[in-house]
Amino acid sequence: MNIHAVIRKIAEDAQAASRRLAHMSDMVKNAALLRMADELTWRHDFIIAENQRDVAHARDKGSSAPMLDRLTIKDETINAMAQGLREVAALPDPVGKVSSMWRRPNGLLVGRMRIPLGVIGIIYESRPNVTVDASALCLKSGNAVILRGGSEAIHSNLAIASILQDVLEQSPLPAKAIQMIPFVDRAAVSTMLQLDEHIDLIIPRGGEDLIRTVVAQSKIPVIKHYKGVCHIFVDTAADLDVAVNITRNAKVQRPGVCNALETLLVHQDVAPAFLPRMAQVLQKAGVLIKGCEKTSAILSNIDAATEEDWHTEYLDLILSVKIVDSMDDAIAHIEKYGSLHTESIITKDYANAQRFLNEVNSSTVLVNASTRFSDGFELGLGAEIGISTTKLHAFGPMGLEELTTSKFIIYGDGQIRT
Amino acid sequence: MNIHAVIRKIAEDAQAASRRLAHMSDMVKNAALLRMADELTWRHDFIIAENQRDVAHARDKGSSAPMLDRLTIKDETINAMAQGLREVAALPDPVGKVSSMWRRPNGLLVGRMRIPLGVIGIIYESRPNVTVDASALCLKSGNAVILRGGSEAIHSNLAIASILQDVLEQSPLPAKAIQMIPFVDRAAVSTMLQLDEHIDLIIPRGGEDLIRTVVAQSKIPVIKHYKGVCHIFVDTAADLDVAVNITRNAKVQRPGVCNALETLLVHQDVAPAFLPRMAQVLQKAGVLIKGCEKTSAILSNIDAATEEDWHTEYLDLILSVKIVDSMDDAIAHIEKYGSLHTESIITKDYANAQRFLNEVNSSTVLVNASTRFSDGFELGLGAEIGISTTKLHAFGPMGLEELTTSKFIIYGDGQIRT
Repeated sequence: MNIHAVIRKIAEDAQAASRRLAHMSDMVKNAALLRMADELTWRHDFIIAENQRDVAHARDKGSSAPMLDRLTIKDETINAMAQGLREVAALPDPVGKVSSMWRRPNGLLVGRMRIPLGVIGIIYESRPNVTVDASALCLKSGNAVILRGGSEAIHSNLAIASILQDVLEQSPLPAKAIQMIPFVDRAAVSTMLQLDEHIDLIIPRGGEDLIRTVVAQSKIPVIKHYKGVCHIFVDTAADLDVAVNITRNAKVQRPGVCNALETLLVHQDVAPAFLPRMAQVLQKAGVLIKGCEKTSAILSNIDAATEEDWHTEYLDLILSVKIVDSMDDAIAHIEKYGSLHTESIITKDYANAQRFLNEVNSSTVLVNASTRFSDGFELGLGAEIGISTTKLHAFGPMGLEELTTSKFIIYGDGQIRT
Repeated sequence: MNIHAVIRKIAEDAQAASRRLAHMSDMVKNAALLRMADELTWRHDFIIAENQRDVAHARDKGSSAPMLDRLTIKDETINAMAQGLREVAALPDPVGKVSSMWRRPNGLLVGRMRIPLGVIGIIYESRPNVTVDASALCLKSGNAVILRGGSEAIHSNLAIASILQDVLEQSPLPAKAIQMIPFVDRAAVSTMLQLDEHIDLIIPRGGEDLIRTVVAQSKIPVIKHYKGVCHIFVDTAADLDVAVNITRNAKVQRPGVCNALETLLVHQDVAPAFLPRMAQVLQKAGVLIKGCEKTSAILSNIDAATEEDWHTEYLDLILSVKIVDSMDDAIAHIEKYGSLHTESIITKDYANAQRFLNEVNSSTVLVNASTRFSDGFELGLGAEIGISTTKLHAFGPMGLEELTTSKFIIYGDGQIRT
């Protein structure tokens, strides 16, 4: 069979599996998830041996140390994967949930019941833990999953997937509920993205290039997240201690992630008092500051920000800083340069806080808290399959419920339309 | 300016308008909707004169009588449009609604607030009333709309849109919140479907060909509905009076719409008692019956159904009938041939009713009620912008809430991540 035929078979099998999986009880799904956790732990030698093949290959190709580090699976990595499976098992099952029912004047009782989406394709890079996380969340929410990991982790991913599949084989669940594409060939992805009759949703997880390539090719709906250019606005009425503390946390605590701060907007009234304190703390933490002209007039030892900086997700210890005349200016800047990801206002003023929450339509908007809270776990969703910065279906961090849709269910007693 | 540049300008203006419109109060939006209703009524001569140009052109082209009928605007049509506007004004505004909030262990108060999608493109055929309906629902839900009607109704649509726009001009609302594409050239649609930076959602309303063309070309998410092959399953425990009554209603009351019945599945145990009664009633109403072999063994005066029939949305007084061995068979048939639109079971058996509701994952599933209730108004949504038969974002009839998404809003008091 050629690649095209193999991928089509995988998608057809996934669809058939999804139809059975949709009606499996939470108890059965949880038992499988817990068994998967055990099996991963018991078979750690196998996983690490396969992973070492990937690591050796990456080393031969001259991959960077951080890249090798992300690729390497250790016993702790496996324990974390197993723990993740147990946590997903403990979450409430969204499938079958009826949030409300209402009675129509003709007596019909109408409700909406949560059901799985069907088949979900996950396309991701390097980190093999996504194989476990994505499989667990899809299985728990009743969806079949087709995994396509990066070529650099192919042996690790296939090893992990085979363990998960072995558990499915021994369970009442459909064995094809979790499948991994066994080719590194890019044609496999192109083929997969055409199969809109069998696959309901594609979630790409990786850099902006990967996501743009997937969106350009896909006939299937894609939930996507290009980048996180997150802002903090330090309002004229900010508590400056809070502003310094939150700015440092949002920029420094983990600069390489999408909800880290990239641009700081400072109201001109507080700039002279705030910026020197802020710069001292950030520079001590190794942050390079790039400022607008007005910022440079207050802080001497910084770089000049260019137009390009306002668009940039640094994912690094770099921060662009702009002084604004008003909250209108701040909101206009966010609308023009933002990525609809996460923005926070630091203020003691009630009306300004409410206005910012109402008027900024990014996927997560905070008052007096770090942008780093824009995360499925931190917001209390119990899990995170990804973050969407487009508005269709899901906007912001996505938990289990975002892997479902709802159908209308209607109890009648003979009603007809007149 | 060429078409491409004009369409791009329309999309950019729509996006700018959508950002202002998102924060307009319900009171201001309602005042505009009520004023639009009045203006349509007052300027009925202008609308009818422009409509007559379209009708004359269609008659010259040799359009069919039903086609001319759908195109023609009368005073009653205008009154119905005005009434529709008043009804939308009376609906609750979904924007700004916070359905629930929860407290995190660190004190953060997290909620989800409904916000508009942004810019919605509506691509539709012949009926000019869609111009009013779609504009009203988009405006009420805080979205800017770009309308692209059929070429046969271009003068009618432009006349109606100009009246709506005049009201916007005189109101505090952004004038570009409602725009109509002034070209009949197909390149206008192709260009529009590429503008994913400015347009958030496309809703095509029309035949399957129109929808497939839009999906094939669009870089923007499309909410779609290819066809409605709706089923009724007459269970072994059906009340046969109810079954006959509902079958007749679902097939005959309005055969040309997507929620009309197309295929009747009958449990073999009740087929001998049910089918002759059913056939007598339907044939009296002018319905042509196409049956499987077993059906033909019971009913002599019917046509034979082919494989193709099970896939067909007749939109006419034709019904395909199949005898099944069991509910498993019925569900398998619906999974194989259905369009995920609407299915109903007729039964007195509690367990069978519950099983059908749980296991059939079409967008609307009913017990003992006509498929014709799969409709935004009938289900109590207050409105209907369309019906989705794909699962992303919305599934089934879509009301005002489906024209919104939700963002996370978070009240903090200095929280940082550790």
